[in-house]
Amino acid sequence: MALLNRKIVLASRPPGMVSESDFRLLEEEVRALQDGEILVRALYLSVDPYMRGRMRDVKSYADPVGIDEVMVGEIVGRIEQSRHPTLQTGDMVAGHLGWQEYAISRGKGLRKIDPSSAPVSSALHVLGMPGATAYFGLLDVCRAQEGDTVVVSGAAGAVGSIVGQIGKILGCRVVGIAGDDDKLEWLTGDLGFDGGINYKTSGNLARELDKLCPDGVNCFFDNVGGPVSDAVIPLLAQNAHIAICGQISQYNAEKPELGPRLLWHLIVKRATIRGFLVFDYFDRFGEAMKRLSEWVISGKIKYRENIIEGIENAPRAFVGLFKGENTGKQLVHIAD
Amino acid sequence: MALLNRKIVLASRPPGMVSESDFRLLEEEVRALQDGEILVRALYLSVDPYMRGRMRDVKSYADPVGIDEVMVGEIVGRIEQSRHPTLQTGDMVAGHLGWQEYAISRGKGLRKIDPSSAPVSSALHVLGMPGATAYFGLLDVCRAQEGDTVVVSGAAGAVGSIVGQIGKILGCRVVGIAGDDDKLEWLTGDLGFDGGINYKTSGNLARELDKLCPDGVNCFFDNVGGPVSDAVIPLLAQNAHIAICGQISQYNAEKPELGPRLLWHLIVKRATIRGFLVFDYFDRFGEAMKRLSEWVISGKIKYRENIIEGIENAPRAFVGLFKGENTGKQLVHIAD
Repeated sequence: MALLNRKIVLASRPPGMVSESDFRLLEEEVRALQDGEILVRALYLSVDPYMRGRMRDVKSYADPVGIDEVMVGEIVGRIEQSRHPTLQTGDMVAGHLGWQEYAISRGKGLRKIDPSSAPVSSALHVLGMPGATAYFGLLDVCRAQEGDTVVVSGAAGAVGSIVGQIGKILGCRVVGIAGDDDKLEWLTGDLGFDGGINYKTSGNLARELDKLCPDGVNCFFDNVGGPVSDAVIPLLAQNAHIAICGQISQYNAEKPELGPRLLWHLIVKRATIRGFLVFDYFDRFGEAMKRLSEWVISGKIKYRENIIEGIENAPRAFVGLFKGENTGKQLVHIAD
Repeated sequence: MALLNRKIVLASRPPGMVSESDFRLLEEEVRALQDGEILVRALYLSVDPYMRGRMRDVKSYADPVGIDEVMVGEIVGRIEQSRHPTLQTGDMVAGHLGWQEYAISRGKGLRKIDPSSAPVSSALHVLGMPGATAYFGLLDVCRAQEGDTVVVSGAAGAVGSIVGQIGKILGCRVVGIAGDDDKLEWLTGDLGFDGGINYKTSGNLARELDKLCPDGVNCFFDNVGGPVSDAVIPLLAQNAHIAICGQISQYNAEKPELGPRLLWHLIVKRATIRGFLVFDYFDRFGEAMKRLSEWVISGKIKYRENIIEGIENAPRAFVGLFKGENTGKQLVHIAD
């Protein structure tokens, strides 16, 4: 009997806030492999804010997902069958195989995972794209150095929580912004952040930030945008660097949201804002993985996973990202 | 009989649009020189948009001007008396001696001008701060290279008109944005700009820009901000660089103006925005002056001066900057 694949496809392109009904679960038989192909059984699926952009019918840095096409997303999985020359049955791999239980691939863009060195799920966060994003964004884009004050928004997310910990390793003062007191307790209590602010309850975010950053903000790692960034930018120190990694507050906006014009602050502070994608650092990925692995093994970087069960719940997990439901990395568990 | 100095002092700090009544003309006797001092007779006075910021009671990159204090501004002048060890009567100098006919100085921050190489007034524009601003902003901040598409706002101003001409020398495609058809005629007809757009009459600025920049905008030199920048930023090419030199559209705003949030564009385009001040390039000023001089002498850079007569009219010239009344450099002529 043929294997049955369950996959999540895009059902509609919401102009505003995404909902579970924008996706549909389809079942299909898994076809036989051809020469050069492998069959991968997904174990964990990653859901990330950037995927919201791929639901729009707009050419961006990557093509949009088509209606009825499987949603994009990175997974870790085990090779169940192989007609590939080098990838073998039993190998663990990570790659962009989409929101589905089984995927056929020719191996392009996949990387092999060593399950003996760390839990395989970590290849989707601290030892994967979010980790590399934090690493290059803080070191290369923000140019963080010992003694700098680093502010990170979305601080309890998969990227933000690693940014702050790398900042502490570098000897920075680190202040995290998040939307939940439990998240902040984790950041300041367990991860060593110097301070944290709940942007939903702080009243005056700019004033609270000013108290925690008396010498100004040298590095701002921005995952959020909107009113959170509005509060940080006026507090920049001279020659500050801002990394625009994400703007999650804006991804569900039907039309561009209005905010106070901020560019003039950059003149006074001689500040630099740079948007980046981790793909731009593809050539240096190994460097990031090596150092992040060392930091995880030595206990200098900790992580938390927020796990939901079953491919059918991937849309719910995804929608939850925009409601701030995850602390640490949001994963969907598919199989053991 | 003692010399009489006429000077313009700050009379009030307007929260919104600046007007001539925010200044007052005072007369005072020029005191006798002490050892180490010189008396400078102003010939030309420069009025520049940045001075609007110095009228606000806010610490910025420089201290604000006090009420009843002489307005800041650069002048070129001739030394009329000297008790200074190296600066001599008859020498021509440029420096920030303020809006006044006579100034006493100890020579700090003044630079000597060679009147035989170019008209002395050029020390206030192409062979002075505006020229150096254009030079470093385009080469160092925008990183303009042959083949790039360069867009400059405030294109017919003292800085913008030089930016575009340096862009043409580098082999760039140059598009200027200004608010007057006569200005655009000068830019495209006399200065060699590849295209120009009147932002006041274009109807849809973004669409007109898109037509003139079919491969996107690699370099944006922004003197204006506001809706002009809103139109340019979505058209950035990959790895674009934006230099924030000025934001003249915002300088008279009573409170921060709202505009569409733009930071997410930077991620998609991996773009960089940097604010800068020409003072940051003080150490390399000589390099800029040498090359700009060569370009002026060889006719590769042309300039235009907009001259108003008399110190009493400096406030009117200054207010005119914000109404777009000047083509090229706005100067106040004080004496021959």
